Amino acid sequence: MDRYEKFAAPAGKFILIGFGSVGQGFLPLLLRHFDLPRERILIITGDDTGRAQAEKEQISFKVCPLTPGNYREILNSIVEHGDFLLNLSVNVSSLALIEYCHEREILYLDACIEPWPGGYTNIHISPSERSNYGFREQALALRQKLGGGTTAVLCHGANPGLISHWVKRALLNIAHDIEGITTVPRTQDEWGQLAQKLDIKIMQCAERDTQIARPFKHINEFVNTWSIDGFIGEGQQPAELGWGSHEKYEPADARHHRFGCDAAIYLQRPGMRTQVLGWTPLTGTYQGFLITHSESISIANYFTLKNGNDAHYRPTVYYAYHPTDATMLSINEFSGSNFRLQNNVRLLMHDIEQGTDALGVALMGHARGIYWYGSMLSIEQARDLAPYNNATSLQVAAGILGGTVWAIENPASGIVEPDEMSFERVLQVATPYLGEVTGRYSDWTPLQGRQALFEEDLDTSDPWQFKNFRIS
Amino acid sequence: MDRYEKFAAPAGKFILIGFGSVGQGFLPLLLRHFDLPRERILIITGDDTGRAQAEKEQISFKVCPLTPGNYREILNSIVEHGDFLLNLSVNVSSLALIEYCHEREILYLDACIEPWPGGYTNIHISPSERSNYGFREQALALRQKLGGGTTAVLCHGANPGLISHWVKRALLNIAHDIEGITTVPRTQDEWGQLAQKLDIKIMQCAERDTQIARPFKHINEFVNTWSIDGFIGEGQQPAELGWGSHEKYEPADARHHRFGCDAAIYLQRPGMRTQVLGWTPLTGTYQGFLITHSESISIANYFTLKNGNDAHYRPTVYYAYHPTDATMLSINEFSGSNFRLQNNVRLLMHDIEQGTDALGVALMGHARGIYWYGSMLSIEQARDLAPYNNATSLQVAAGILGGTVWAIENPASGIVEPDEMSFERVLQVATPYLGEVTGRYSDWTPLQGRQALFEEDLDTSDPWQFKNFRIS
Ligand SMILES: NC(=O)c1ccc[n+]([C@@H]2O[C@H](COP(=O)([O-])OP(=O)(O)OC[C@H]3O[C@@H](n4cnc5c(N)ncnc54)[C@H](O)[C@@H]3O)[C@@H](O)[C@H]2O)c1
Ligand SMILES: NC(=O)c1ccc[n+]([C@@H]2O[C@H](COP(=O)([O-])OP(=O)(O)OC[C@H]3O[C@@H](n4cnc5c(N)ncnc54)[C@H](O)[C@@H]3O)[C@@H](O)[C@H]2O)c1
Repeated sequence: MDRYEKFAAPAGKFILIGFGSVGQGFLPLLLRHFDLPRERILIITGDDTGRAQAEKEQISFKVCPLTPGNYREILNSIVEHGDFLLNLSVNVSSLALIEYCHEREILYLDACIEPWPGGYTNIHISPSERSNYGFREQALALRQKLGGGTTAVLCHGANPGLISHWVKRALLNIAHDIEGITTVPRTQDEWGQLAQKLDIKIMQCAERDTQIARPFKHINEFVNTWSIDGFIGEGQQPAELGWGSHEKYEPADARHHRFGCDAAIYLQRPGMRTQVLGWTPLTGTYQGFLITHSESISIANYFTLKNGNDAHYRPTVYYAYHPTDATMLSINEFSGSNFRLQNNVRLLMHDIEQGTDALGVALMGHARGIYWYGSMLSIEQARDLAPYNNATSLQVAAGILGGTVWAIENPASGIVEPDEMSFERVLQVATPYLGEVTGRYSDWTPLQGRQALFEEDLDTSDPWQFKNFRIS
Repeated sequence: MDRYEKFAAPAGKFILIGFGSVGQGFLPLLLRHFDLPRERILIITGDDTGRAQAEKEQISFKVCPLTPGNYREILNSIVEHGDFLLNLSVNVSSLALIEYCHEREILYLDACIEPWPGGYTNIHISPSERSNYGFREQALALRQKLGGGTTAVLCHGANPGLISHWVKRALLNIAHDIEGITTVPRTQDEWGQLAQKLDIKIMQCAERDTQIARPFKHINEFVNTWSIDGFIGEGQQPAELGWGSHEKYEPADARHHRFGCDAAIYLQRPGMRTQVLGWTPLTGTYQGFLITHSESISIANYFTLKNGNDAHYRPTVYYAYHPTDATMLSINEFSGSNFRLQNNVRLLMHDIEQGTDALGVALMGHARGIYWYGSMLSIEQARDLAPYNNATSLQVAAGILGGTVWAIENPASGIVEPDEMSFERVLQVATPYLGEVTGRYSDWTPLQGRQALFEEDLDTSDPWQFKNFRIS
């Protein structure tokens, strides 16, 4: 990337809502790849985080937390036709902003469907309503209500985001390697048929982050490589997974939503207390947390093949997240206090000494066992590629860049999920920032090395049953 | 401790079997507190660990792993009447050595009932037979068979070991504080009655170790402050707990042993995958592992009050272990590979930079909520008190010192458990090595801060039900 490719810029301003780890990481990419005079970039955010960077880059920076009561008024005073609104905040309702942007006909992208404050842990609403399934159904209902219109891209970071595109790339690679197939499906149905033909039973978003900082982690401190607010929010949501048609055993604590697409279930348990086995090429097998993510639902839904109401094919889809070691300990400490947040929080950035974030999709159950496809980005590579980033934030920023370019190039697509966008175009834009992008086969299964020490509830005849992966 | 108190030494030799972290930590105390010419101390061990220390101290050091086939022959060539045999090995059957020592009339002490190799993970025997309950019943059967005889102290380190004595001290402190009672029970029955009168529902061995070393932990490395072999052995045993008479809900994965004292149950699950909430004064509440230990059974049994076959009083007793942060991660990594041991192991010692091991008993359910009593020993204090130790090993060595002195002073007691010894004498000997020995009340309960986010299976009317503590 000696000379940076320039993509079509929005006609008007580029407005960032929120300027935390992801916003800060994305700004250098925005400045590089779009011919946008600096005065057409604007940051509206909730606190002073990132102010120094914004000032150094001569970007307007306004601390002005959006609330249900003020967001329209504030945006009215700023937003004009032709603008692009990039929502990278926490505690601001994505759906409120999407509806607003639809009315004003401005482009929109976010990295997660975020509720107003407390939305993840409101005990007065049901777990179903606090789930990503519930949030996604609200977004789909909004799409129904609004019809088409200006493009609003939902959930387009790394995961959710790139992961949906990697699934397709990975399917094509497997199809080529196993079946010699080279045709690219053109419809959702054809994608589902390809996945079914290849016998994909599980699409696991498998992430192992080995970044490590000094100081490592203090007692009573929550550390993470991206939003701590964001992570503890989703970590307390119910664990959720797209529920595959090959699954024979429904977990005792599983619940079905009684509305919507029905592609996913949730567990009566927070993701930060739900552990599963996963696999990445970086360190092999690992035990991570089943954290809910919107891609677990949208991908499962996208690949569902139906006969009437009956789903005769659907993969199981979930996120098996092993964040940095210090974050693993932070989760344990957080859970150990029944989820009272530690007195101190730290977003790891300049203090990172080494490590790699391996993030990809592991497609399991096909003729060659498992195939992981994704990005292994080291902190050194990330720092070489762009300032103000760690490996994690750059993967996300790359996804946002890809999604933003796509949205500008496809400005009248209404509300879209990553699965509905062009995987080729997005990956083309994002990949230069992703370090080693690679696909690997493995013969690992969750039954490997399993000892017969206990009456474990396993299905040894089919390694790909969810219960074989679940530890707690 | 400017001048070291001297205790009565054994008439003959002092033979150490095994010279790992605990043996090495105990040797300085042995040299200090007994008038024993160095040539009367002997180390027989399985590998070269500790050789440099032994040579520096001019103690005979022989690498000669004991096996079922050779142990009698080897010991025959060494052991004489009047010797003391201290078993601090792994992979050597405690019961074999106890029977041998009984025959030869020599004093014996160990820190754990250890089986021959593979005994913890032999899939050809039942979980019950691999449990500490099973091992303890074997020891009791041996006691039955042998009758009295020379003293052989079972399981006398810190925990098991000191923990049994702290329970008594803690009970007396609570009795004094709440009821103004100052009389000391003289019989097992009277101890049970006191615990019942005070309404003690749980005796939790609560340990939070904050020792931290540099380097912290590498990928594919298991680090611990004491025996890695020992810990992964017990961590793969079934989780076990003394099962209290106040418990209303038996866990679905609980099993009863169909033989023996019936004071404890086990779970169809390894301790290293079983998490519970605990509390120490060092960091407050935490999430630790329910690792099986013999004290969970022996203490529960000791405090059982029976009407015929019916236990009308028994406390719930278990170990809630939060080892060092690096060890927590090691466990997660180990579990994540279905218990294939990492390629590298490291026993933390000189590389420790800071931290404290808080180890004690938390008595719960009485009029003042919970009362923790035990040792908070920092690495700095430990290093000031004795060389070749970290905080953890010194707590264990202190327990061994106390038990050894008691055994020499009570040489004809046959096989004894810690609960049957004089808590006053043992604590008198051990306490100088334990740093801050302290008792603290707290109003913490496992329901504290519990949110109503999920259909959790809790008993909110009685915080002291085991299910309220269990996380996985
Ligand atoms: N899809 C992905 O791959 C992915 C990855 C990481 C993060 N995310 C999501 O991206 C978003 C940002 O993540 P981050 O790591 O930058 O978060 P962060 O916590 O580092 O930053 C959040 C930002 O939001 C701002 N903010 C808070 N309240 C606000 C309000 N009321 N009005 C305006 N701004 C407000 C804060 O000031 C801060 O600048 C989160 O929603 C997160 O879940 C997605
Ligand atoms: N009760 C407690 O508080 C407590 C605490 C820590 C350890 N322990 C127990 O104490 C024992 C020793 O612990 P450690 O941390 O010193 O262990 P370690 O692993 O550091 O050392 C074990 C020693 O046993 C020796 N050994 C192995 N196989 C042998 C054989 N066949 N014959 C003779 N020696 C052999 C090894 O060479 C080594 O010297 C273990 O059983 C452990 O479970 C008890």
